Amino acid sequence: MSAWLLPDHIADVLPSEARHLEDLRRSLLEAARRYGYELVIPPLLEHLESLLTGTGEALELQTFKLVDQLSGRMLGLRADTTPQVARIDAHLLNRQGVARLCYCGPVLHTRAGGVHGTREPLQFGAEIYGHAGLEADLEILELALDALRAAGLPGLQVDLGDVRVVDAVLAGCELTPARVAAIHAALAAKDAAGLEALTVDLPAAVRAALQALPDLWGDVAVLDETARRLPPSAALRSALADLRWLHDRLGELGLPVQVTFDLADLRGYAYYTGVRFSVLGGASARHEIARGGRYDAVGAVFGRQRPAAGFSLDVKQLVRLVPAPALRAAIRAPWRHDDAALRAAVAALRAQGETVVSVLPGHEHEVDEFACDRELVQRDGAWVVQPLGAP
Amino acid sequence: MSAWLLPDHIADVLPSEARHLEDLRRSLLEAARRYGYELVIPPLLEHLESLLTGTGEALELQTFKLVDQLSGRMLGLRADTTPQVARIDAHLLNRQGVARLCYCGPVLHTRAGGVHGTREPLQFGAEIYGHAGLEADLEILELALDALRAAGLPGLQVDLGDVRVVDAVLAGCELTPARVAAIHAALAAKDAAGLEALTVDLPAAVRAALQALPDLWGDVAVLDETARRLPPSAALRSALADLRWLHDRLGELGLPVQVTFDLADLRGYAYYTGVRFSVLGGASARHEIARGGRYDAVGAVFGRQRPAAGFSLDVKQLVRLVPAPALRAAIRAPWRHDDAALRAAVAALRAQGETVVSVLPGHEHEVDEFACDRELVQRDGAWVVQPLGAP
Repeated sequence: MSAWLLPDHIADVLPSEARHLEDLRRSLLEAARRYGYELVIPPLLEHLESLLTGTGEALELQTFKLVDQLSGRMLGLRADTTPQVARIDAHLLNRQGVARLCYCGPVLHTRAGGVHGTREPLQFGAEIYGHAGLEADLEILELALDALRAAGLPGLQVDLGDVRVVDAVLAGCELTPARVAAIHAALAAKDAAGLEALTVDLPAAVRAALQALPDLWGDVAVLDETARRLPPSAALRSALADLRWLHDRLGELGLPVQVTFDLADLRGYAYYTGVRFSVLGGASARHEIARGGRYDAVGAVFGRQRPAAGFSLDVKQLVRLVPAPALRAAIRAPWRHDDAALRAAVAALRAQGETVVSVLPGHEHEVDEFACDRELVQRDGAWVVQPLGAP
Repeated sequence: MSAWLLPDHIADVLPSEARHLEDLRRSLLEAARRYGYELVIPPLLEHLESLLTGTGEALELQTFKLVDQLSGRMLGLRADTTPQVARIDAHLLNRQGVARLCYCGPVLHTRAGGVHGTREPLQFGAEIYGHAGLEADLEILELALDALRAAGLPGLQVDLGDVRVVDAVLAGCELTPARVAAIHAALAAKDAAGLEALTVDLPAAVRAALQALPDLWGDVAVLDETARRLPPSAALRSALADLRWLHDRLGELGLPVQVTFDLADLRGYAYYTGVRFSVLGGASARHEIARGGRYDAVGAVFGRQRPAAGFSLDVKQLVRLVPAPALRAAIRAPWRHDDAALRAAVAALRAQGETVVSVLPGHEHEVDEFACDRELVQRDGAWVVQPLGAP
């Protein structure tokens, strides 16, 4: 085994992609800042029970575990930042009013999301605490779209759903959480046979409604169809009204974005309690790039359950869907320690933000890695910048 | 045990400090970019043997270990990024000429550096590969000073040393690496009694030289004193000439920095092979903030030993030594979904880079977390920005 081989689904990010990733990171954090979201940086390591409480089994399987030599206790490497931000809102900030928070940092997963997936995503996200109204859901959705548009993601599409639609169908059935999770999974996979098998003992109306759900996707007309095909209830009406309100508000924003609905898809939304959304994009294919929605229960284990909505995305996934910017051109400069005018010229260019690469003695004939398009040359006693290779 | 308690020496970074940390991170990466250093992002997790080969026992004790469920092999969380960058230079880039690389990301330590230390530093560093001459040492030193000056660190001071001075004294003695390390530690601690006990069986001239070393610190006059007091050798002359050359070049740069020497201090420089430096700073006290120097052997275990020099620092330590910038003031705006002119005014301000905080319905009387100094108000049918609370 060579010392330079990396574990599966773990990779270095090399210069061209790293620079683009860093640019996207800044662009996303700046978008959140413009909306008034304050940056927090939770730690990579926490006590295992703080990371996992209330977040479901899926996250537990994804979390790397190790022993703290200082305390002998089990620690986890965070696989998701949202529970940490809920902890910060609950205990460190403890504000009475609205708190808007954002973050950007690595998370680690024991298994990759797919064949080409990474086990070390760079997770960016934003969350708003303390407002139960749909205005918070809308702000989060608008921020997600605005941030992705600013990042240069083409082909923006929003897919909306609501956990309460399935909850309304299952209301009145006494089901274990594991069985509810299995039903959610079968619905998301549009697995009619699996759904049938899972629900044989449920009332006929519930079964018919569950079988109808996988068809309830498409444009805004799906909301009316859902009202017709599912058993009426106050909870269902409320969820559908919320989805329509969000759809109408999104239309008013004037963003170039297509809005669709999928009322059966609850994949990856273990702690969501209301509206959920995913943002898709990419030039040719439709990649799901961000997920978000409302998760009012996420702070409960930290002793402060209050309204919460947010979204997150993997910057390492985003970087592959966004056209890379042109390499910033640099200036080559010779190296002479005894020339104060040269040193001053280099310092002045760098102070202007230019990249100046000093060609160290003996390396004059190497190919530049930095795509130099200009060079610093001496003309009539003065150091001037000219195009590379000019006479 | 409450779910919100964090492990010892692990902490959240809250908004005011997080924003400052992010600003410093960008400032440091921009400084490196202006010198032509390309960003790389090595992974947090690697096979344990890749992280530890050739870096000494100290790093092994500092490295968290865990099992990869995919392969059953031991993984480590990086405690230092330099060996990873050496691996990238050796195998992924594999350039014949000079490679300049920089990085900024978390590292994790099993134990904290001190009572108030963190186990999760944010390590920034820059490294130059492929040039054996002192010009590379100088460029790294200049970049470290320039980056810290740009970050706003007051009271810059450089302390220079060279591993080859002690090596020259011990040349000809056959010593185990463990004993050499113990001698280095006693020298760094200026522990005369310990040094005496460690060296009873060494020749008298070597012992006298070792006892002299802890006194050899101070300004540039120390170089002449060292040449007088230590046994003459080609290796010693070469090391002292290099230190003097660097001292003279630093003087020419015109940076407001004091230069001192300490020829006995080799703490924390396990893989260094030549000149080493530390940069100190801070308003009242002298904190060691960055360490660097030459480590030509660091790529050897990856099959490509070539000249290397670099430095690194902890941005979380730096943030405490640099005055925090004033909070960027924001604009409050009311929330009304039915007012297209308001939406347009908010979008235009955000596009200009302003922070605009929407006051969600019911939260009009909350204190702003974002230090709003202006508000968006309707005047004669138009939305205009005015100072907060103006009539």
